[in-house]
Amino acid sequence: MSDRPIIRPRTLKGFRDFLPEAMQAREWLIDTARTVFRSHGYEPIDTPALEYTEILLGKGGAETDKQLYRFEDHGGRDVALRFDLTVPLARFVAQHIGELGVPFKRYHVGPVWRGENTQRGRYREFMQCDFDTIGTESLAADTEAALVIHDVFAALDIGEFTIHLNNRLVLAGLLAELGLADRTADVLRSIDKLPKIGRQGVAADLEELVGASPAQADRLLAALTVTGTNSEVLAQVAELAGGAADAGVAALTEVVQGLAAADVAASRVKVDLSIARGLDYYTGTVFETFLAEIPEIGSVCSGGRYDDLASIYTKQRLPGVGASLGIDRLLAALEEIGKLDAAAAAPSILMTMFDGSRSADYVGLAAMLRRGGLSVELYPEAKKLASQLKYADRKGHRLAVIIGDSEWETGTAQVKDMASRVSHTIDLTELLDTCRQLLGATAG
Amino acid sequence: MSDRPIIRPRTLKGFRDFLPEAMQAREWLIDTARTVFRSHGYEPIDTPALEYTEILLGKGGAETDKQLYRFEDHGGRDVALRFDLTVPLARFVAQHIGELGVPFKRYHVGPVWRGENTQRGRYREFMQCDFDTIGTESLAADTEAALVIHDVFAALDIGEFTIHLNNRLVLAGLLAELGLADRTADVLRSIDKLPKIGRQGVAADLEELVGASPAQADRLLAALTVTGTNSEVLAQVAELAGGAADAGVAALTEVVQGLAAADVAASRVKVDLSIARGLDYYTGTVFETFLAEIPEIGSVCSGGRYDDLASIYTKQRLPGVGASLGIDRLLAALEEIGKLDAAAAAPSILMTMFDGSRSADYVGLAAMLRRGGLSVELYPEAKKLASQLKYADRKGHRLAVIIGDSEWETGTAQVKDMASRVSHTIDLTELLDTCRQLLGATAG
Repeated sequence: MSDRPIIRPRTLKGFRDFLPEAMQAREWLIDTARTVFRSHGYEPIDTPALEYTEILLGKGGAETDKQLYRFEDHGGRDVALRFDLTVPLARFVAQHIGELGVPFKRYHVGPVWRGENTQRGRYREFMQCDFDTIGTESLAADTEAALVIHDVFAALDIGEFTIHLNNRLVLAGLLAELGLADRTADVLRSIDKLPKIGRQGVAADLEELVGASPAQADRLLAALTVTGTNSEVLAQVAELAGGAADAGVAALTEVVQGLAAADVAASRVKVDLSIARGLDYYTGTVFETFLAEIPEIGSVCSGGRYDDLASIYTKQRLPGVGASLGIDRLLAALEEIGKLDAAAAAPSILMTMFDGSRSADYVGLAAMLRRGGLSVELYPEAKKLASQLKYADRKGHRLAVIIGDSEWETGTAQVKDMASRVSHTIDLTELLDTCRQLLGATAG
Repeated sequence: MSDRPIIRPRTLKGFRDFLPEAMQAREWLIDTARTVFRSHGYEPIDTPALEYTEILLGKGGAETDKQLYRFEDHGGRDVALRFDLTVPLARFVAQHIGELGVPFKRYHVGPVWRGENTQRGRYREFMQCDFDTIGTESLAADTEAALVIHDVFAALDIGEFTIHLNNRLVLAGLLAELGLADRTADVLRSIDKLPKIGRQGVAADLEELVGASPAQADRLLAALTVTGTNSEVLAQVAELAGGAADAGVAALTEVVQGLAAADVAASRVKVDLSIARGLDYYTGTVFETFLAEIPEIGSVCSGGRYDDLASIYTKQRLPGVGASLGIDRLLAALEEIGKLDAAAAAPSILMTMFDGSRSADYVGLAAMLRRGGLSVELYPEAKKLASQLKYADRKGHRLAVIIGDSEWETGTAQVKDMASRVSHTIDLTELLDTCRQLLGATAG
C-alpha cells in the first residue's frame, strides 16, 4: 500500500459533493415536497438512470441530444444517462399504463445528467423533483397541481411566494384574432424578452423579426401586459381578444376560482399573460413560481398541461398536467436568505465520554434517552472535554451531557446548554426529563 | 407526430422500473433507516454518480473493474459510474476531511451500477444505504454501529432478527497459534464454504487445498464452531487459542456488553466465529444480520471495522466502522412475508366528483380535510361512481366521500368505508370529524 502513489481526490468538472449541511437541506426540501405530494394522492415511482439511447434521443431538442452522456455498454447496446424525468415518465407510462390505469398520479425524485457548458454556472448532474397527473383533461387536475405548488411552499415556510398562471389558449386566441397564428414560435421568442428589453423593445422585435404591423404589436402587447386583479385581467383580455381567447380565459378562471375555494390567499396567485417560457411545450395551463424575497433567482417551480405525453411510445393518447420543483435553485435560495441550517436535524444531544472503560454505561444512557424519543449522539472517545464540546458545536447539538468520575460516584450528571453555555447539575434519574425540558425551552 | 414510427418502450436488461407499490416500500425502508441514523448523529452526504475512472479502478478487485460502466465524456475524460458507496466515501473524506473533522459520521443512500451477469438474478443498478463512523478506533463506535443495525430492524418491525458478530482478530489469533497465519486468505475461502459443505467438507478442504494437518484443521474448526451463550463461546475460544485471540475476544466482549447495556435483547446478538465473508476486507469487528423468518435470503445488513479507509487518496490514516443495509434484499423479504403494502401511504380519503361544474367546491372540501391533517385525493372527473370507487380501491384509500346533487342541496355527504362498504350519511359540517373518527376506528 505504502508504495502506491497517492491518487489526487477530486470530482469531475460540473459535478459536486454534497456535504452534510447542504445535504440536510436537500433532504428537508425533498421530504417536505413528498409529504405534500402524498397528501394529494401522488405516488412515488423510479426509473433507471440508463436508458436505450433511442428512448432519449430527439425528445429534448438538438442541444439536449448533444449533451447526452451516451456510450456503448458491455453488451454493445447504445445507452445514455437520462437528461430529465419527463422522457422516462413517458416511456414508463407507455410501458405500464395497462397495469397502472388512469388517472395516474406520480412523483419522481432523482438525479439527471446533462453535459452542459459549465461556464454558465450550470451543473452536469442535478436533482429533479417532478409530479404529474396523467390521463385526464379535467381542469380539476390543473387546479390541484397549482394547489400542490402552493402547499409545498407554504410548508417550506421560506417567505411569501406567488404562483404565476397563464394558459396557452389565451395566446393562441389573441394571435388568431390578430392574424399572427402562423408566426407563434417567433412571437413566443420575442415575448420571452419582455423582462429584459421591455415593452418597447419587444414591440420593435415583433415588427422587425416577426413582421407584425405596429398595430398588431401594440394590440398584442396591450393584452399581455394588462394589469389589475386576476378577474380584471381576465375580463380585459377576453375583450381585447374579441372572444377568440374565451377558452383560455375560462380555463384560467376555473383554476383561479378553485384555488380561492381551497382558501389560497389571492396575493399568492397571479394571472400573468406575459409568461412565454414553456408555451411552446405546454398546451393549456402554465405555472411559474417566484419567491418574494429573491424573485431574481427565477421560477422555483414550473410546469403546465400537455395534450399527449407519450405519443412516441404508444398510440394511446395521454394528456396530463404537472410541475417540477427546482431543488438546486431552492438550495441556493435557502443559502441566500440564511435558512440553510433551518433544515438541520432535530433538537439533539451529545453524550460526552470521560472514561473509555465505562463506555457501556454511556451507551446505555444514550440508548435510554433515545428510547425517550430524543436524538442522541455518543462521542466515541474519552478525549479532552474541550474537543468534545467543539464537536458538539460543529454538529449543532443543543445539549451536552457530561458525566465524569465524580458524577458517576454521586449518581449525577451535568447537562450543558450549548447556546447559553449554562450547566445544570442533576440527579441521573432526572436525565431524560431534564433534557426534554431544556430542549423544549430552547426550541423555536 | 403521427408519421413517426412508435418506439417500443422498454428498459435495459438488468435495470428496473419501480412501480408505486415497490417504490413506496423502498421509500419507507430508507426513511426508517434515515430516522435511526439521524437519531445517532449520522449526517447525510451525496457524491456524484460519475467519477474519474482512476478514482474507481482497482478498488473493488478485477471483477469489479470489468463490470465498470466506463466511457469517455464530452471533454475526453475517462469516467465511470460508481459501483459502490465506499470508494466515493474514501475519495470524499480524503478531499474534505480538513473541513469535516473527525470523528466524521455519515450516511449515504444512492444508486450504484455494475455490469453484472444478469443470469444470476443480479441487477445492474441498485440502491445502497451505508452508514460509517470515520476517524476513531474506539470500540464504542463499533457498538454504536451494531446498535444502529438493531434500532433499524426494530423500527422496521418485520419480525425477529439476529446480529451476528465476529472479529478479524480472533481468526488472526487462532491462525497464529496454529502456525497457519501465512495461509489466511486460503483458510478464509475454505471457512466460507461451511454452510454449504459442512464441517467435514471444510476439514478436507483445509487439508487438501490449504495444506493444514488434520490436527490443525480440527483445532481450527473446533474453535470456529463452538456453541453456547455469547460469553461461553468467547471463553472457550480464548482458551482454544491459548491467549493468541485475546485482543479479538476482548473487543467482541466489549461490543456484546455495550449492546446489553443499551437493553438489546440477548437473543438478537450472536457471537458467530464462522463468519468469514468480509474478513479479507475488514480488520476488526464484522457484522451480519439475518431475519428469523427468512434466513435463507442471506445477510440483510453487513459491515465491519477497517484500519484505513482512504490510503489511496491521502496519507492521513482514517480508521472507521460501518455497515450497509441491503435495500433490495429487504424489498424481496417484504414481498415474501407479505408486508409490501404495510409500507403504503397513510390512511387516506378519495373525494369523488359528481358534477364537474362544482369542481371548485370539491377542491375546497378536500383542502379543508387536508388542513385537518388528512391525506385527501380529489378524483378529477365526474366519471361513473363505480369507476371512482374502483380507483379508490386500487390506490388503497380507506374512505370515499360522495357528494352528489341531492347531498349538495341538503348540505350532507356520504362517507363510505372502503373495507366494510358501509356508508354513513352525515351533515357536511361534520365531515372532518367523521373522517377522523372512521380513520381512527379502522386503523391498525
